[in-house]
Amino acid sequence: MDHFFNVKTLDQVMENLKDFSPLATEKIFLTDATSRILSKDIIASTDIPGFRRATMDGYAVVSKSTFGSTESNPSWLEIAGEVKMGETPAFSLKPGMAAAISTGGMLPNGADSVVMVEHTEIVDETSIEIYKSVAPLQNVIDASEDFAENDIVLKKGLTIRPPEAGLVAALGYSKVDVYKKPRVGIISTGDEIIDIDKDPAPGQIRDINSYTLAGFVKEADCLPVLYGIIKDNLDSLLKTCRRAFSECDMVLISGGSSVGARDFTIDVLNKIENSEILAHGISLSPGKPTIFSKSGNKPLWGLPGQVVSAMVVFKIVVLPFLDKLKGKSRSADLPISAKLSRNVASTQGRQDFVRVRLKNQDGELVAEPVLGKSGLIKTMVGADGLLEIGENVEGMEKGSMVNIIPL
Amino acid sequence: MDHFFNVKTLDQVMENLKDFSPLATEKIFLTDATSRILSKDIIASTDIPGFRRATMDGYAVVSKSTFGSTESNPSWLEIAGEVKMGETPAFSLKPGMAAAISTGGMLPNGADSVVMVEHTEIVDETSIEIYKSVAPLQNVIDASEDFAENDIVLKKGLTIRPPEAGLVAALGYSKVDVYKKPRVGIISTGDEIIDIDKDPAPGQIRDINSYTLAGFVKEADCLPVLYGIIKDNLDSLLKTCRRAFSECDMVLISGGSSVGARDFTIDVLNKIENSEILAHGISLSPGKPTIFSKSGNKPLWGLPGQVVSAMVVFKIVVLPFLDKLKGKSRSADLPISAKLSRNVASTQGRQDFVRVRLKNQDGELVAEPVLGKSGLIKTMVGADGLLEIGENVEGMEKGSMVNIIPL
Repeated sequence: MDHFFNVKTLDQVMENLKDFSPLATEKIFLTDATSRILSKDIIASTDIPGFRRATMDGYAVVSKSTFGSTESNPSWLEIAGEVKMGETPAFSLKPGMAAAISTGGMLPNGADSVVMVEHTEIVDETSIEIYKSVAPLQNVIDASEDFAENDIVLKKGLTIRPPEAGLVAALGYSKVDVYKKPRVGIISTGDEIIDIDKDPAPGQIRDINSYTLAGFVKEADCLPVLYGIIKDNLDSLLKTCRRAFSECDMVLISGGSSVGARDFTIDVLNKIENSEILAHGISLSPGKPTIFSKSGNKPLWGLPGQVVSAMVVFKIVVLPFLDKLKGKSRSADLPISAKLSRNVASTQGRQDFVRVRLKNQDGELVAEPVLGKSGLIKTMVGADGLLEIGENVEGMEKGSMVNIIPL
Repeated sequence: MDHFFNVKTLDQVMENLKDFSPLATEKIFLTDATSRILSKDIIASTDIPGFRRATMDGYAVVSKSTFGSTESNPSWLEIAGEVKMGETPAFSLKPGMAAAISTGGMLPNGADSVVMVEHTEIVDETSIEIYKSVAPLQNVIDASEDFAENDIVLKKGLTIRPPEAGLVAALGYSKVDVYKKPRVGIISTGDEIIDIDKDPAPGQIRDINSYTLAGFVKEADCLPVLYGIIKDNLDSLLKTCRRAFSECDMVLISGGSSVGARDFTIDVLNKIENSEILAHGISLSPGKPTIFSKSGNKPLWGLPGQVVSAMVVFKIVVLPFLDKLKGKSRSADLPISAKLSRNVASTQGRQDFVRVRLKNQDGELVAEPVLGKSGLIKTMVGADGLLEIGENVEGMEKGSMVNIIPL
């Protein structure tokens, strides 16, 4: 006997990703842009750095004047002047000439390289000796060496990290086009669930999912919108869900864990305007009792009420859909590789996600399965990541290298 | 010839960590607590879940009544009632009795386990058959199985992730004690640096470091305070630095990259009240021209003006000090292990940090060094992490397993 009438595999659920698209875009200040997703390619407005720039303190020279220089056989160069920071040198260099320059300074016309100050000696006010030769373009960055005008320097869909923010600053863009942050409605259901400010009577439990899910939504740089706890009542759940649906880009209904509450959730998701149930049950563990529907561009999820299951389903199943709404390019997943500390059994026919603790043992990363029932919060609090065991695998052996999804 | 008069190794710099301590604490709402650092241990106010709870839909039973049950030889049990969610059952169970229960429901007195609904069949209104035996405590979580009253459930110094927020919610704490977020003053210096809204003349360059450093500070869940661009002028730099020092918990002066600007920075850091220069030059590459001083509990840094160097020094050197001010427990670093795609040379006597791109090749993580001069922003924009090559290592071989610090 199985309550689930439309059980899908994880792969089947992920096939629905193609039917969702990124949200609208907005222009925001670069200072607020870190971790946002670019909605337009960034094109270089100019060459970067834009001029031939020293990367060392020393003397700008014409490189061929230094060829063959050694400690015992130095070249002798005439000092033509000193480069001031932020200014175009008023003089040019010819072979046999040198100009004092600091890191970041602009090379005078004619100069093609910089001799490090460590490899020079001042002879008198007008001349220096060079003890080491430099090649053309040595210790300089050329005018368009970092980026050339009209290059596509950052692609739409990319996450703006601090280095990318720096590049955008270098190009002089104080605002950037990004996708809007998805608003994610979070509804807790279940007659046994009470507000965290209240004292639970026996049989009651405080609302945990609102806090874990809001935390994960924020971590994903999205906006959680909390709709509180709804008792197992079809009308009030439908009303709240409609409101969340109209105000948000995605809705998460967590729990109730009881059969009745799950039935309400499926009824409610069915009644949302133009909705279509895409999965009722997903063959993963923990997390099977998950309902997935969509209406237009909005995914709606009925997550398991069980705390650990809800977290696993959020990380493994919901997050890719949130990334799609965010406009984030799907990067090839970078596995964290670790050595398994003990044998792990699994059931064939479903994907298992085992919580693991990661430890550094003599410079090697070791994944230690966190033991304990999947209903225990402590198995998540103690875990650093999830070990995926595929559908057709019976288990994994101690000592084998495994890939871990960080929590 | 060397401009640096007090060059320290990275290890020597890290020895100064012990002289800094976490900032003051504050009480904040749990809804704002994700990624903050606990400043007090969290003690369980109560048992969690607090009652014997079903983890499956089915029938609560006295386990010994089911012993020996099989498909061909089922046990027959009398239905004593149904458990309502969130309520204490008004009846008790004796051997030979069963009560319908949903996941999350409270077991009646006397019941010690739950038979999954899949392993039962309803005979009539008052009785069921059981096809599979259950052990004591099977398919239940006992009253104090997750956490017991007075357990220390989370340690001071821990980062509050979503699972930890969920646990705190379960205990009914709507506020938590955390360390204050460090305020980090950011000053850009250098005559060649201009605001990003301006068009650079030849020899000038836009202010990149303010944006990359502010991004990294935010990523570290700290508060960047931007003091703009200061020209190479001792008085104005000292004035701005004093202001930043009085308003912030850490100050970062980046650049100028010129010799003169570096001299100003050392003068200024020397003139800050009760300051002590701890390092003038750190033997790492890129990033050697770093100045480190402290005044009381406040670290002050003169970072290299060169963008990539400033980023590397922030990630490798500054971040551990920021973590100390944040009160974050130093976890043993978890290395990301990857296979090196090519030989990498290095200079002995300094720690090298090579930018790498991470790729998933047939399920194996491969680290590909990003080629190009260390002054090029594109070498950071294209990089996922840093490969550390120790002081006494000449280089690393293609195919060897290396540890990567994520960017």
